[in-house]
Formats: sequence, structure tokens, C-alpha cells
Amino acid sequence: MQEDGNVATRTTVTGYLLDRLASLGVRHLFGVPGDYNLQLLDEVVAHPDIAWVGTANELGAAYAADGYARMRGIGALLTTSGVGELSALNGVAGSYAELLPVVHITGSPKSTFERAGAAVHHTAADGDYERFARAQESVSCALATLTPDNAAAEIDRVLLAALRHRRPVYLRIPADVATAPIDAAVSELPLDSVELPVDEEALQGFLRHAQIVLERAQTAVVLADHLVDRYGAQHELDLLLAESNLPYADLAMAKGLVDESDPRFAGTYFGAFSRPATKQAVETADVLIQAGVRFTDTTSGFFSQDLDSTRVIDLQPGSAKVGSALYAGVPLKAALAGLAKLFVDLPPFEAREFESESAAASPTELPLTQDQLWSHLTTYLRGDHFVVADQGTAFFGMSAQPLPAGAGFIGQPLWGSIGYALPALLGAQLADDRRRGILLTGDGAAQMTVQELGSMVRYGVSPIVVLINNQGYTIERAINGPRAAYNDIAPWNWQAVAAAMTDDQALLLTARTADELDEALARADAAPDRLVFLEVHTDLDDIPPLLARIAAAAGGRDATAA
Amino acid sequence: MQEDGNVATRTTVTGYLLDRLASLGVRHLFGVPGDYNLQLLDEVVAHPDIAWVGTANELGAAYAADGYARMRGIGALLTTSGVGELSALNGVAGSYAELLPVVHITGSPKSTFERAGAAVHHTAADGDYERFARAQESVSCALATLTPDNAAAEIDRVLLAALRHRRPVYLRIPADVATAPIDAAVSELPLDSVELPVDEEALQGFLRHAQIVLERAQTAVVLADHLVDRYGAQHELDLLLAESNLPYADLAMAKGLVDESDPRFAGTYFGAFSRPATKQAVETADVLIQAGVRFTDTTSGFFSQDLDSTRVIDLQPGSAKVGSALYAGVPLKAALAGLAKLFVDLPPFEAREFESESAAASPTELPLTQDQLWSHLTTYLRGDHFVVADQGTAFFGMSAQPLPAGAGFIGQPLWGSIGYALPALLGAQLADDRRRGILLTGDGAAQMTVQELGSMVRYGVSPIVVLINNQGYTIERAINGPRAAYNDIAPWNWQAVAAAMTDDQALLLTARTADELDEALARADAAPDRLVFLEVHTDLDDIPPLLARIAAAAGGRDATAA
Repeated sequence: MQEDGNVATRTTVTGYLLDRLASLGVRHLFGVPGDYNLQLLDEVVAHPDIAWVGTANELGAAYAADGYARMRGIGALLTTSGVGELSALNGVAGSYAELLPVVHITGSPKSTFERAGAAVHHTAADGDYERFARAQESVSCALATLTPDNAAAEIDRVLLAALRHRRPVYLRIPADVATAPIDAAVSELPLDSVELPVDEEALQGFLRHAQIVLERAQTAVVLADHLVDRYGAQHELDLLLAESNLPYADLAMAKGLVDESDPRFAGTYFGAFSRPATKQAVETADVLIQAGVRFTDTTSGFFSQDLDSTRVIDLQPGSAKVGSALYAGVPLKAALAGLAKLFVDLPPFEAREFESESAAASPTELPLTQDQLWSHLTTYLRGDHFVVADQGTAFFGMSAQPLPAGAGFIGQPLWGSIGYALPALLGAQLADDRRRGILLTGDGAAQMTVQELGSMVRYGVSPIVVLINNQGYTIERAINGPRAAYNDIAPWNWQAVAAAMTDDQALLLTARTADELDEALARADAAPDRLVFLEVHTDLDDIPPLLARIAAAAGGRDATAA
Repeated sequence: MQEDGNVATRTTVTGYLLDRLASLGVRHLFGVPGDYNLQLLDEVVAHPDIAWVGTANELGAAYAADGYARMRGIGALLTTSGVGELSALNGVAGSYAELLPVVHITGSPKSTFERAGAAVHHTAADGDYERFARAQESVSCALATLTPDNAAAEIDRVLLAALRHRRPVYLRIPADVATAPIDAAVSELPLDSVELPVDEEALQGFLRHAQIVLERAQTAVVLADHLVDRYGAQHELDLLLAESNLPYADLAMAKGLVDESDPRFAGTYFGAFSRPATKQAVETADVLIQAGVRFTDTTSGFFSQDLDSTRVIDLQPGSAKVGSALYAGVPLKAALAGLAKLFVDLPPFEAREFESESAAASPTELPLTQDQLWSHLTTYLRGDHFVVADQGTAFFGMSAQPLPAGAGFIGQPLWGSIGYALPALLGAQLADDRRRGILLTGDGAAQMTVQELGSMVRYGVSPIVVLINNQGYTIERAINGPRAAYNDIAPWNWQAVAAAMTDDQALLLTARTADELDEALARADAAPDRLVFLEVHTDLDDIPPLLARIAAAAGGRDATAA
């Protein structure tokens, strides 16, 4: 497909796709080989800029691609048709829910088979070769089946859609199409087109309105959430916080976005379950600037936020509101940048500082409590770390703790798929080699996807895996059936599992007290080039205080506050 | 919902569903707990006839339910909405492709949340609570979202659809609906309605036509395939083989259906890749009676069957053909029973006997070859065994071997999802406690779903797991990239993995020669009440002869023969 005025170059469908992915920053492709994608894989392993990362199964690949996208802005995975693409579906759905652009490529049977409706393996033998692509519609914002004729245009369309909507996309490539030669234009992807449009007039109107309410206000607070990250407005948020000098809070889904070590940081807001100082700051401010906030049940204490919408400046991805006045065509980035400028000329708000909550001292030689676990980990964390917390006690435990400046945080509180974090760490660590990843996962979650421990060694990454062994689904015990058999899991020897799956390459550590935990973390630091597997034991009923309060409320929860 | 003339009884939606499942023979429900199904689970663990089997993840549950359905005629799994149901999708898709009635129950958020469109976890925060149910449409023949008002009628409709179409069905049950009280009719499910209707006139016409062609024939052969099993016509097939005394062959997807130890058994037919005697018998018979045959690529040697359709009597689930004459309304069971009667009065065909192919003797103290592996296993197998062969070298290796009378065989050659067999064994063994299961799986496949080893010990089953360690995806090496990195896997210490996941309860064995294999199998026999984990080592390029021939042909394969 030669476009006017551009030089065309001879490549293949796969070659074109890989070059496009590389131009967007993709350096690793996750997945599992299958006989419908082997020829495609020959081109992957030969590509100068993209490395193949074979995971133990496709769900692991999807989770890894999601973790990768959280660090790089985009991720990609390759599966085989039917069996592979469906195994990946839950992982891709998480990227859909939590707004990560992930490119899901599936190798399908040769188009000659498809035209004949042949009853080949990995189909339902009904001649319907689109059957499983239809399942992908639930988790994709754009889909395409490639032919040599449409490949270049469809690849561009679908990749731009992924970036525009911050959602997964799906490309089905028949095995013969993957290697088909095409002439492709040597032009860059029009990345400008993915930005949400700015209506200058609306923007000025919004800023004038914001100025009026801010000038009247005695107090103002910024509440930041994950849409700032997803819509690439991190820099503009930093500007606003720097220019305004306002106190700020975040939601748990946005951890890692703002500096939580700054005295201006008021804490992580969980609605009614927030620390009193955080709740007071957020809920009583004369003006609350919500930057990219999406309230979901687990990050709002089941919709217990108590906010007066007339006092809110709400910045959404494509529009902004001041009280009830909606300004369409005012995207998050432009609104944040505009507000930052506004504050240069506004009279300064009174400075306010918050103390971080320190855990009550407790004996460090007695059996480790979850309380101790999170506070000792928090003391340990540095700016060259990133945390990946699985959606059990780990997420609720760590999200209430302040992170050091520079540290990253990955959780999945909306999609909430347990087992996500371990493979996501593989992807995130490959994407970010400046910081060391620290996984926090429960044993029930880890049993779901543990096999990617082997992939970590195979691909030479050396994060710290903290396995919280509390004998089952503790988060569910807190909700229902504390002694029900369905909350138990098969008992494993975790040290032996980790040794066996890592070919004895991992540094194996255990901690049963806070003292042992501190010592183990020191030993992990002394082995920066080894995968560390640290098993910590906590009681099967011991849960983070925040989760205890939420679980207690969960029984009577309802949607009325939603 | 009280029906006329029936006594109504007070139960709950879950209670009604569980009673219906129990009435169909379901004794085990596989799955993973999640906060949207915990109340439902309270009723499961309290039910007198159904036991809960918690698997490590949902894909394992789906595979186990499929294995269970192969033994019991129906299986069931329980997941939580979004994350759980999507993780199970590939397993359910296999049941769809290979015609197994599996009931997939998903606990979803309370209906109050759904009506409010609340952004709760396990949704995409878009208020669309049907999003993931739509993905289930690709793999289900009937779906329902239950309310207290529709529950009894919808449960009955959906269960009958599963039995009628031999396909999975999907029930979405909001958490509050699961425990809602209902009045349900105490009537039996109208199981007669699931049988395909018989047109008596068409049946008689078919039988007269069949009689004419059989009277003219010198030779006739029966070729049996899996639809006989799926449409419950095993007994009628047995009758036909007994009354006719005809030679017979099977397709690999039907192994375990006919007695392969009988001298009349001509072998397993693989089109051009069949043993010469099998190929000759099937392809040159004056009349070939195809009983429930569905030719798929992997069981027909990529559509290389060379059959003269004018000489075929083709018995499909709902219709029959003699040559090109189609008889609608002649289901498989009725056609087989009618043919069996016909043979009582037909002049007998000449008896024919086949010798089973014996492997060439080879040194049993040298490194084990796959050839030796399959032949020694075949010698070992008894009628109180069933084999579960994963879709790698294991399936192709064992499907060419004759089974002893009474032995069962589970494979998945159409869907072909590697990793299927290990969890399927868990389900099949729980469903069938008269025969000991023997799993044959490669290391690449086992890495996908290995965690269910722990579930085997947890639920007290003691099959023999044979792990073929050949360092990667050997079946794919045979097709493309024999030394490509993408066909490698992470190196594991399999003995240690098995020990660690089974809480040191398994009997661990290893074999590197045929002698060691025989000895290990004897030790497994001596431990009938223990899970046995037997690791056998074969060379990474060593593949079953049948697969070698198919893979060599696969490069040039096309759909023209389809």
C-alpha cells in the first residue's frame, strides 16, 4: 500500500506490524508459540528491536503485557487462535477495564483453510473462523483481520485506536498472511491524532470560571487519580502541584503518580475509610480539584466518598466541570496546564503540612503481623523500587502506606483479578530496568499464575518476590466464610516450588518475624542481580486494618451511593 | 413458579440449581471462590449430593469439568464474574468444540449494583454488566441471567439445551439472586425432549436402502467416531458390532469407544497416515458404515482420507445417508439399532482378523525413545485404566496404540489446547473411581496448568501422572523451528515441583530407559492409593512416528482436501 508522496518499502505483514510496534516503544513481545503463529515468530526472533518473551501460558503473557504497558505506555502479546487467545482473555480484559493499550496479536489458520471452512484444530469445526474473535469484542476497542491488501492500513488504524482510547486492540493474522510480502509506506504514525481535541474557547471559559471559584476559596486540595497517568498528563499535574503549592491526596489506583513523601501529601483517600486527616482535607476543602478521578468501589470505600459536587473542579479525560457547569472540549492535559498557569497569578493559599501515620511500635521478634509487614516494607522502600501488589490483602495493605519519591506502584483494584501481579511484575521489570520490582502477593493468588517465576529467571530479571503465606484466600475469609473449606487452598511447600521453577537460581528467604523480615530485605539488597523469593508468614485471619474496616462494611453495602 | 398439577417446594435459586444438577448425575462442582459467589458457595458446601472442588485457577476448573463430563455425561463449574468467567473461557470453548455439556455458573454483583450501573470491581466500570456474558456467547449454546422470577424456568431451559446440543451453557447469577427464596415445582426434567426425533418412515426407507447396498457388498467395515459417544449411542454401536460381526476401525477422537483388543479391530484410521492394513480395510470396503464420524484435520491426517462417498453409509447425529441419498429424521441411535437388526437376517460377511502392530524390539537399557514409551505403556495398560493424553506427542503417540478392552481414553484432538489433560484428569478421576487414570503430558503442556497437582492431593485422587520431559514444545519443533528459542521453555526441576505442590504426598518416580519405565510402572501399581508422579526423559527431537509423518506433510498442507 503505497501512499502518495511517500517512499514505499518491501516488507511483510509481520515486518510492518513489528516495525510499527517498535516505533511506539515496544521492545518485548510476550506470548506462547502455536502452530498458527510459528512463521510469524520466525520474524519476531529475527527483528532487531523486539525480543520474544515466551511465558508458561497465555494468561501470564496477557498480564505481563499489561504490566509492560503500565511502564511503557503500550504492551503487546502474541497467541495462537482459539486456545491461546481465549486463555489470554481475562488478562486483556483487565487492560480494558484499567485503560492500558495492549496489542493482542493472534495467529490463525491459513486463509485457504478459512475460505474452505475446514474443520481444523483450534476451531469448533463449524467453519466459523470469527467465533473467537467475537469473544475479543468484549475486551477490545478495535479489531481487524488482516489480509495482504488491508494490512498496513488496518494495523495503523488499530494501533491508533489503542492509543486514542487507552484500550486493548485485537489483530487476527492468518498464518499465510503473516509472511505475505507487502509494499508499505515509510511514513510515521500520525500520533497527534490520538490526542483529545482542545476547544480553545471552552478552555478559556473553564479557566475564567475556575479562577472565580479559586479566588473565593480559603482552602483548595488536589485529588489525583489514575486517569492522569492513562491520559499522559503526569507532567501537567506536576506543574499544577508545583505552581499552586496546594495540599494533595490521591486515590489508591493512582499510587506512584504523586510524591507521597512530601509534607503537602494528605494521604490516600478511601472515602469513609480514609485516615481522619485525609478525609478532613479532601472533604472539607472549599475547592477540590479532581484530576482524572474515576471512583470505583474498592478505591472509594464502596462509594462512601462524601463530597459536595458544587465545590468540585472535576477534570475528566475530555472535559472539565466547575460545579455543575460542564466544559466540553477541555481535555485533562490542557486543563491541568491552564490551572497551573492560573496559580502563578493567584494569591497563594495557606501552606499546609501533613504527618504520615506511623504504625504503633510492636515487638519485632514475635510472629509477624500484616500491620508490621506493611510498615516495615514501607520503611525499606526507596525511589529506585516499584511495587506490584496483588488484589488481596497486599493491595489494601500497601495502598494505605506512603511511597518514597520516585517509587512506582502497580495494582489492579478495579479489575481485581487475583494472580495478576506475578506475571505483571515480569512485564513491568522488563519494561523498567532502572528500578527493582517488589511483588507483594498472597499464596492463593500466587497459585494461579506461579509458573512465570520460571520466566523471570529465563529472561534474566531479578525482582524481589514477596509471597505472603497465610494459608488461603484471606481477603475472602474477611468477607464470608472465615473457616469455610472453599477459602482454603492446596498446601504447598513454597520454598521448594520457587527453587524448582527457577532452576535453583533464586535466592530463597523466609521471614516469620519483623526482625527476620528486615534481615531478609537486607539480604535481598545484597543480591541485586538475583531473583529473590521471600516467603513471609502471617496468620490466616490477619488482614490490613483498612481491609478489615471495608470487609466489615461490605456485608451491608449497596449501590445507593454509586 | 408452580406448575399445574405439581407440588411446589420452598428452596432458593441456588438450591433449585444444585438439585437439578444432582438429578443429572453431577456430584462435584469445580471452581474458584470470589466475593460474588461466596453466598452461593455456602449452599454448595451444605448440599448433600454435591461436593465442592476448589481448583488453583478457573482454567483448571473448566478443564476438570470437561474431563468430568466425558465420564459422567455432564460437568459443572462455578466462577466469579469477569475475572473468573473469562479465565475459564478457553476450557469451556474446548467443551463447545468437542461437544461436552458443561454448565458454567458465574456469580455476578448484586442486582442492585447492576441496576445502578455502579463501577464495581470485576467490571469495566462502564455500567455494562452484560459485557463478559457476551464473550460467553461464543462458547455456549444457551445463556441466562437469573432473577427469582425466571430462575426455575431458565435453569430448566438451559440445562435441557446443554443436553440436547451437547454444548456448554452459561448461567449468570447475581449474588442476591443466588440466595433468593423461590417456590419451585417438584417435577422431573423432561429428559425425553433432548433426544433427536425419529421419523419412522424415513428410518424404514433408510434401512431398506441400506439393506440393498449391504446385500450387494462382499466386504463391509464399520468406522466409529466420537459422535457415537456424545449422542449416547454406545450401546447401539455395540449391538451393531455384535450382530454384524464386521471388522471395524475407529478415529483417534473415539478411542475407548470400541474394543481395540478384538481381532476384528482393524486399527485407528488416520487417512493417508494409517497403518497399511487399516487404510486398506477402511478405504477398499464395498460398504463403509461411518458411525458418528466428524473428520477433523488432526484425526484425518489433514483431510487425507481417501473414501468413495458412493460406498459410504454415513450415520450422523440427526440424519443418515446411503451414498448420496439423505434420510433426515434418522438419528444415530435409531440408525445403529436398525442396522444391528438388519444384520440378523443378512447373509454373514466373511470374518476378517487383524494383527496388532508390534513395535520392533529395541534395547531396553539405552535412553528411552518415544517409540518404546508408547509400546511399553500399551503393554502395561489394563481394562481398569483410563488414559488422558495431552495434545502433543502424547496424543499422537498413544492414539496409534490399541487399548485393552474396558480401558478409557480422553484426548482433545480437535480443540487441541495444550495443558488441558492435567486438570481434565482431576475431573475424570473424580467422576470415575473404578478405573485409575493415567496422564500422559509433555513438559511444555504441563507448565501451563501444573498447579492442579495440588488439587489432586487435596481431593484425594491417586492417578498416575506421566510427565514426558523433552525440554520444550517438541510437537512444534517438528512443525517449525526445531532449534528456535520460541520452542524452548523455562527449565524446571520437575521432581521438586511435584513434591512441593503435593505436600510431599506423591510417589515420585523417574525413568530414563525402558527398563526403568517398566519398573516404575510396577511401583505405581504397588501404590494404588497414592498420587504417582513419573517423569520420563526422552530426547527433545524424538517424536512418535505417526506425528513425524504428519508434521513432514504439514508444511505443504492445504485446505483443498477439506
